[in-house]
Amino acid sequence: MSATAMTSDYRARRDRFRDQLAGSDQPVDAFVVSDLVNVGYLTGFTGSNAALLIGASADADRICTDGRYRTQVGEQSGDLEAVIARDCLTELARQARAAGAATIGFEGDAVTVAAHRALISALDDASGPVPELVAHTGAVQRLRIVKDAGEVDLLRAACTIGDKALATIIERGVIRPGATERDVARSLEWEMYALGADDIAFETIVAAGANSAIPHHRPTQAVLADGDFVKIDFGAVVGGYHSDMTRTYVLGRAADWQREIYDLVAQAQAAGRAALRPDAELREVDAAARSVIADAGHAEHYVHGLGHGVGLQIHEAPGIGALATGTLPCGAAVTVEPGVYLPGRGGVRIEDTLIVTDDAPELLTATDKTFTVI
Amino acid sequence: MSATAMTSDYRARRDRFRDQLAGSDQPVDAFVVSDLVNVGYLTGFTGSNAALLIGASADADRICTDGRYRTQVGEQSGDLEAVIARDCLTELARQARAAGAATIGFEGDAVTVAAHRALISALDDASGPVPELVAHTGAVQRLRIVKDAGEVDLLRAACTIGDKALATIIERGVIRPGATERDVARSLEWEMYALGADDIAFETIVAAGANSAIPHHRPTQAVLADGDFVKIDFGAVVGGYHSDMTRTYVLGRAADWQREIYDLVAQAQAAGRAALRPDAELREVDAAARSVIADAGHAEHYVHGLGHGVGLQIHEAPGIGALATGTLPCGAAVTVEPGVYLPGRGGVRIEDTLIVTDDAPELLTATDKTFTVI
Repeated sequence: MSATAMTSDYRARRDRFRDQLAGSDQPVDAFVVSDLVNVGYLTGFTGSNAALLIGASADADRICTDGRYRTQVGEQSGDLEAVIARDCLTELARQARAAGAATIGFEGDAVTVAAHRALISALDDASGPVPELVAHTGAVQRLRIVKDAGEVDLLRAACTIGDKALATIIERGVIRPGATERDVARSLEWEMYALGADDIAFETIVAAGANSAIPHHRPTQAVLADGDFVKIDFGAVVGGYHSDMTRTYVLGRAADWQREIYDLVAQAQAAGRAALRPDAELREVDAAARSVIADAGHAEHYVHGLGHGVGLQIHEAPGIGALATGTLPCGAAVTVEPGVYLPGRGGVRIEDTLIVTDDAPELLTATDKTFTVI
Repeated sequence: MSATAMTSDYRARRDRFRDQLAGSDQPVDAFVVSDLVNVGYLTGFTGSNAALLIGASADADRICTDGRYRTQVGEQSGDLEAVIARDCLTELARQARAAGAATIGFEGDAVTVAAHRALISALDDASGPVPELVAHTGAVQRLRIVKDAGEVDLLRAACTIGDKALATIIERGVIRPGATERDVARSLEWEMYALGADDIAFETIVAAGANSAIPHHRPTQAVLADGDFVKIDFGAVVGGYHSDMTRTYVLGRAADWQREIYDLVAQAQAAGRAALRPDAELREVDAAARSVIADAGHAEHYVHGLGHGVGLQIHEAPGIGALATGTLPCGAAVTVEPGVYLPGRGGVRIEDTLIVTDDAPELLTATDKTFTVI
């Protein structure tokens, strides 16, 4: 992850988190953030072992990491006091207690049952009463849903790299009968790096022919053939932010059933995009696309949710699915990606990354979506 | 992950796990494995949502995944009954209870506090008493320490790709003054893919000059210069198995202090390798290398453990460090990687991947380790 924000931005994020905690139905005297992505979001630190103590005021905040990252933590999070320890969750909880905290919040969706038990037993020493440990869920993730301008810039840059990389491999004839799924995946990844991606966003999916009916297919040595659907789902990372796009093409010549399911998915995807409005119920956004596919009799061939938030992680809050609760805030970055998968025959998915705005959503993935035979 | 084993191998692994559970101090009627790597180890399944129920006998075993992976689970784990559900942990625990289990084991180091609470509340319904949920820690990870012949073949293949890729970029003059750390990292990764790697094992570390003093440095646009240490830590993945190797070179001309710390680390590394014997205490293996560095007065410049297990994950059991408990079994795959890091000046790490045998350990990473000026 490159630097994604200024020191002042990280401090502002910690203050927003502190305010959110104070207003929650489980207020605490201190909170230890131990999910590494959340620690990075709140501090800029990118090492592989860290935790962050959020105190009652900014001067009580401190970051913990181990000796391997002593230099790096000073460079990336120099505005925070750094504690060097191996078990950062326990060390910061101890320090919070020493500072008088009677209740300490933690991330119930990041701390395992075993780590929680170890924490309790580490705190059960002679230095005073064990503080109450209060599990919160998705607390920092909720803050991360709405992206600030700097985050949107990075998402936009990542999506543009994806667009250009796909256009390049199409121009160069990489997607052709005789190529393997892996050839296509590797070429796409190479182009993304050449265009300045810091990383690829996830394992590139290239699925040809009947494999395209497998929603999350790992590329194999399977050879692309005339008449195949070729489904490509991929993304780039820029400054820690992930792009996500799927396009499905037909190779050589298209059959009627291929046009039909493509058009159906394209219609459903357009309906899903149109439903992306501030304060829309997440399940209604899902339903806007799903009903198009269900009305055509393919409900059972669309086996996943409509989309998900995207940012520092490829999948983050909010999930947009039939069982989702809550609404979509203005400024959220999400994907819209319905699909129809006919086992043994082939499948289509069309996916964009978009920002929810007060007007129409901003489309970050610009690659053409009209039915295309390559 | 490509196929790493035959159906019969996976069944044998499940039977070994069942036997281990029966002999543990916390026997249970059924066990739900939900860590995805562990599920993959025991079933061959590679999807992103799954859990595995281990029953009292093989005919009670079943795998759960969601609708996206219906086709894939049949292909990869066709010998197991597949359950399709979204929340696989809860669904399999429900099925275990329905089959009469009064105690259900789970992975305390994989299940979060939030998931555990959700599981308890999901089981607290009208269909009978809630079974006792018993947290185990590292249960499947312990099985994974000793590699079978097929696993060693894959590790060997991954290490050979690493050796060849590094030799290729050195021959081609990629590591030269004027190149950036990222250029070197990208070239190395590209060569690994070209040589047949399924993936890179982790984010390649290329650290030049003073950056080499940062143990885990992400490659930047920093330009390599004459007289720099260049530390390269990287690996390939073949069939799901990871290689791990670090080499440190000097560019152009070497200073005396560079030769000194290089020789010191090389001595420590040789001592660590020599200590890899079946049934050796892990902390004594660590001490064998650490004492060499400490005796030279550099204890505080060696800030991490000596090594770690490697296999389906880049870091897995056993950890070899000063606080490690337990012994090293014959057949374990581990790294040996001491380092000395002088902040602001530069650092050296030398790392190999090896298999513990009854004789000398088998060295899987064959790249020369003599002091080399490029």
